[in-house]
Amino acid sequence: MAERGKGVTSGSNPIRCIHRSRGRIGNVPATQASDPGGWVRLKMNGHGEKQTTFEIGVVVPKRIVKEENEVCDCVEVLVDEFRKVGLIVESVLGLADEFIKLAAPLETLGRAAAELQIKKPTHIGMDLQFEWEEVEAFVRQPDDSLFSWCERFHCYHYLIYGISNKSKSAVTLNFDGKEFHWEVGESLLRRLEKQGIVKEVFPLHDEVKRKQLLRSWALNWCDITKQPIDEIYSYFGTKIATYFAFLGMYTRWMLFPAAFGLTLQLVDFGSMQLLVLPIFFISIILWAVSFFQFWKRKNAALLTRWKISYSVGADPRYKHLGMEWSSLQAHVELIKRLGTDKTTMKEVSQRDEWFGHLMRFRNDAIIILSIICLQLPFELAYAHLYEVIGSDVMKVGLTAVYLFAIQYFTKVGGRISVKLIKDENNESTEYRADSLVYKVFGLYFMQSYIGVFYHALLYRNFMTLRRVLIQRLIVSEVLENLLENSLPYLKYSYKKYRAVRNKKKRENGSSIGKIQFTSRVEKEYLKPAYSASIGEELEDGLFDDFLELALQFGMIMMFACVFPLAFAFAALNNVTEIRTDALKLLAILRRPIPRADATIGAWLNIFQFLIVMSICTNSALLVCLYDQEGKWRIEPGLAAILIMEHVLLLIKFGFSRFVPEEPAWVRDNRVKNATHAQDVCSKQLLRSISGRKRHLVE
Amino acid sequence: MAERGKGVTSGSNPIRCIHRSRGRIGNVPATQASDPGGWVRLKMNGHGEKQTTFEIGVVVPKRIVKEENEVCDCVEVLVDEFRKVGLIVESVLGLADEFIKLAAPLETLGRAAAELQIKKPTHIGMDLQFEWEEVEAFVRQPDDSLFSWCERFHCYHYLIYGISNKSKSAVTLNFDGKEFHWEVGESLLRRLEKQGIVKEVFPLHDEVKRKQLLRSWALNWCDITKQPIDEIYSYFGTKIATYFAFLGMYTRWMLFPAAFGLTLQLVDFGSMQLLVLPIFFISIILWAVSFFQFWKRKNAALLTRWKISYSVGADPRYKHLGMEWSSLQAHVELIKRLGTDKTTMKEVSQRDEWFGHLMRFRNDAIIILSIICLQLPFELAYAHLYEVIGSDVMKVGLTAVYLFAIQYFTKVGGRISVKLIKDENNESTEYRADSLVYKVFGLYFMQSYIGVFYHALLYRNFMTLRRVLIQRLIVSEVLENLLENSLPYLKYSYKKYRAVRNKKKRENGSSIGKIQFTSRVEKEYLKPAYSASIGEELEDGLFDDFLELALQFGMIMMFACVFPLAFAFAALNNVTEIRTDALKLLAILRRPIPRADATIGAWLNIFQFLIVMSICTNSALLVCLYDQEGKWRIEPGLAAILIMEHVLLLIKFGFSRFVPEEPAWVRDNRVKNATHAQDVCSKQLLRSISGRKRHLVE
Repeated sequence: MAERGKGVTSGSNPIRCIHRSRGRIGNVPATQASDPGGWVRLKMNGHGEKQTTFEIGVVVPKRIVKEENEVCDCVEVLVDEFRKVGLIVESVLGLADEFIKLAAPLETLGRAAAELQIKKPTHIGMDLQFEWEEVEAFVRQPDDSLFSWCERFHCYHYLIYGISNKSKSAVTLNFDGKEFHWEVGESLLRRLEKQGIVKEVFPLHDEVKRKQLLRSWALNWCDITKQPIDEIYSYFGTKIATYFAFLGMYTRWMLFPAAFGLTLQLVDFGSMQLLVLPIFFISIILWAVSFFQFWKRKNAALLTRWKISYSVGADPRYKHLGMEWSSLQAHVELIKRLGTDKTTMKEVSQRDEWFGHLMRFRNDAIIILSIICLQLPFELAYAHLYEVIGSDVMKVGLTAVYLFAIQYFTKVGGRISVKLIKDENNESTEYRADSLVYKVFGLYFMQSYIGVFYHALLYRNFMTLRRVLIQRLIVSEVLENLLENSLPYLKYSYKKYRAVRNKKKRENGSSIGKIQFTSRVEKEYLKPAYSASIGEELEDGLFDDFLELALQFGMIMMFACVFPLAFAFAALNNVTEIRTDALKLLAILRRPIPRADATIGAWLNIFQFLIVMSICTNSALLVCLYDQEGKWRIEPGLAAILIMEHVLLLIKFGFSRFVPEEPAWVRDNRVKNATHAQDVCSKQLLRSISGRKRHLVE
Repeated sequence: MAERGKGVTSGSNPIRCIHRSRGRIGNVPATQASDPGGWVRLKMNGHGEKQTTFEIGVVVPKRIVKEENEVCDCVEVLVDEFRKVGLIVESVLGLADEFIKLAAPLETLGRAAAELQIKKPTHIGMDLQFEWEEVEAFVRQPDDSLFSWCERFHCYHYLIYGISNKSKSAVTLNFDGKEFHWEVGESLLRRLEKQGIVKEVFPLHDEVKRKQLLRSWALNWCDITKQPIDEIYSYFGTKIATYFAFLGMYTRWMLFPAAFGLTLQLVDFGSMQLLVLPIFFISIILWAVSFFQFWKRKNAALLTRWKISYSVGADPRYKHLGMEWSSLQAHVELIKRLGTDKTTMKEVSQRDEWFGHLMRFRNDAIIILSIICLQLPFELAYAHLYEVIGSDVMKVGLTAVYLFAIQYFTKVGGRISVKLIKDENNESTEYRADSLVYKVFGLYFMQSYIGVFYHALLYRNFMTLRRVLIQRLIVSEVLENLLENSLPYLKYSYKKYRAVRNKKKRENGSSIGKIQFTSRVEKEYLKPAYSASIGEELEDGLFDDFLELALQFGMIMMFACVFPLAFAFAALNNVTEIRTDALKLLAILRRPIPRADATIGAWLNIFQFLIVMSICTNSALLVCLYDQEGKWRIEPGLAAILIMEHVLLLIKFGFSRFVPEEPAWVRDNRVKNATHAQDVCSKQLLRSISGRKRHLVE
């Protein structure tokens, strides 16, 4: 076991490099806890023994450590610093890299949470800043842990990136013979990342819980839409649990239109046939509208169960204040600096707010214009060419070119969107992510539906339309589900294979039998991350999962009258989707970085938009369907007025999204007051609450 | 000055009637303050002297008090009890009645507020329960008083109705020789009201402030739309100030479409004429949409200025928690009684919630059905008959019958609505008032517009339509404004005349010169109250004022394309409306009972609904206008589909009103937690805040 060196940061004299360590860290036995006396996050394994749960992994290259070189080895310093902040460290030697696994005793986390000023619900129902001394006043998670996974991760992040050079001069570190400086006040981990020594920091799977979830969730096909949402929440955090709760409820509700659609397909209504389609149309719209309203209720109920304070209808920026508090506080600080002169504050804040709106408006205008002027003609050209070309070979070639082109298109579009969003000075990352979602969804919307619209409205050929719809649905369901799961697995296998091959090469082919991966952490490292296909900086894999859902929803809703069977397809797909997504998250990918967002955010508005769209398209489809002879002429004048009317209705209902009801300065005022209140009374309140609790217990 | 008798309520022995008083209360000189040592709400008059502001008046009949009869005279007891709770009492003898004027020292109000558990904003920005001892911690009103008029009224009400018989047996009181019992625990004032002795309790005008407001507001015609909103707030309370702020902003914004409409009327655009109308249509819709969004912002800003805590987008039930707290608390109590079993609580709450929705749905269905089945045919019949009948005499007769019938109709409709609402178990009176507004507006909507629709859509005769619109606008503007002000004044004059005549009769015609009203309070008593024309139990005069605005808005918006000049009419009308309404409130009516509601409530939704309606009607009008030859045929099939589409769009956007996003049990949970938190920490927090303040001052 590594001896603790004298601290780099402890002396007031500039101590250049006095760290010495005798043993190699990699040799520490894997199950030996290094802080046996502390408050350790322990877990009982099957035999009643306690086992530390390591939650963060740090990857560094394998080093050939020679005795004389060991002085000031940067990895040793890093490990030492980790220990100093109170983390439990375990080193594992893999085939190609070395892995530092980190766990934190509860007290370490608690102190970090107090420094981060994380707000947590207390037993009296108020959210207060966390204080380690008053720990009894705070409500525990449904799984009886004090911190949620999201909060734990936040604390870990703060702890490991917070290690900075606190001495008065730069420290010289070396790695494999190369030397570099660790400047005063610089974060060690950031420095090592810049030097390329720390390859990655990623959250680790918790084997016990993972296996439990695999059994009770991913492989539990008998529960068709039922899922252990609370366990998912405590393992993956709020955002992913919300996604699965949504997916489950959506699938459950989907069974009704699926049954209706199937009936429509199978039963011949005879003379009633003409009446049945409008009834179907009306009922699915009502279904969709009520589904989303009930989803909001369900979401509120879930958050209450998870003890996440949240106010309905509030600005989305406040739904995850706990985490994004800092950015708001910065805003408030700015205002404070301007002095207490109320009118200046109000003016500055108003100017700021309107500038923000202007930027957002400009960006939206750019995106919308480029979608209409660049993407629309392109998509229409493809749809038209595909119809015109006779030979099948040419069609396949065209499609290949098209697929290649749209890949490139979306990549570019995503990159432009991310760049634009960076100018927007949105207050929180979740808000930025929402902004990205809106912009990129515009792209995908055009891509997915314009071809179908082309068939539907220009050709009025419903047989072709139905064929196209079936094709698209099957492609999206089978292919995407397959790709989604197999691609990461293939990537993982290839990486594994390469690692083994490199190892063999290094050992000069002197392989005796197969080389095995001994450490689980290395396997996890080789697994792909849960990342978005577009705008990785702002979103994670949930983007793709939600996108798939939204595109499917649009497809089945907008053309419901032409192809009622689609709902049955979609229901079937979603039932499998639940399990395959679960499998993907648990078995194929790394544990994702938890996100604090408590709702489905921008996607809700996108779904709502799709409902409105589907009201319009289905009306148009019904007109086409009943007016086979084309007697119902729509004069250009009438059409223009109808379009104008619809655009105005859209503006009427969409406008409140652009101009918030509450001026920014009113909001700032409120936030400032709230923070102020928190600062003043937090500790007092806490003492009284925990006093009361103790009193109750005695 | 009346000697203080020994308290009826002080002894533990059943003291039957020991109150004695020597002087007649009516003889107390009017300006003599009866509590010179206490904290009196004093006001500097012009000469630097301090003058008590009496804010509540209690009306009792004039008595002929004989010495022997004076024992246990109930009015004397009442006055005595008023003094005992700390109020300053002054008796004024009028022509027909006697008036007891009440003022309260700040301390009396403070103690009442603490007992009422009124929540007030503190200097740290948090709302806490008021405590008289920690008075320094609370933020003062913009006019530097501690309590707003609304809070003061609430306290007065609590104080004077809270006087109950605290002795162990009933007390015998007498009035003009008749004896009656004041039961144990019964409120004295309620008893006297039941006996018909206390005729009325009403808030009094504050002469100084009233004159000031008359000068700076009602008679200040130079400021076209500017109003001293803060003074209005401190004199009339939140709801009325909000109305005037809305009216001012609405009128200011109205100038733009008025100018546009005037231009359209005066300038001949030649060949562009066909393009101008759609542009006008689009711009007024955009105008209306942005106006209401910016109004919400303005409202939020006003509430911040008035230190009313309020969260944007929150359930309207929480916008006035300070006053309506009790009813919510009752709900919470109910839940607490059911035990802490979470699942039962949730279930009971859910059952309760859905039952409430069901009742509301049933009521709405009844109202809508009766409007469609009863009112619609009636209105259509009138419109049709009016067109068909040739002779003018018959037309006048028909209109007279019609006007008489609708008067009766609305009265009955209002009464039915009120009855239905009583079943709804809405949580607060303001919520009930909103429910009434929706229902009654349905009636008025049909009444006001169906005739115009009839002209517009069936006859397609735009000249007639324009004539009808002008007629209606002028009628509503001139006639209603006139009636609104002159009718109350006539009523007042008649009452005054009758009082003088009665007096003369009683004095057997021995009148020497004119009998004058010496006391201002008697004049005020004779003034009519600010009451609604319909559903007086739930609404006050604001109902009629808002109704007028909403009907005007609907009229000018829905037929904007036919008659753009209407906006100029409306703007002109509203400029006068501001001043006449002000005059009405200040000079012609009694001071209204203040209401705590902080937004325009249901009216906002009604305005929004009118915008949507006007998008549809204007589109239809444009079609009619451009399609003079009727070439644009709308086939029944197409029409049916279009109607279905619009209904579905309406459902889509209206649905969220029917099913709240947050389940009731989640809300209750939140409220319960909040109350709990308040109970626990209120006092502690306060002490720390006022400690800090004192520290800052020193």
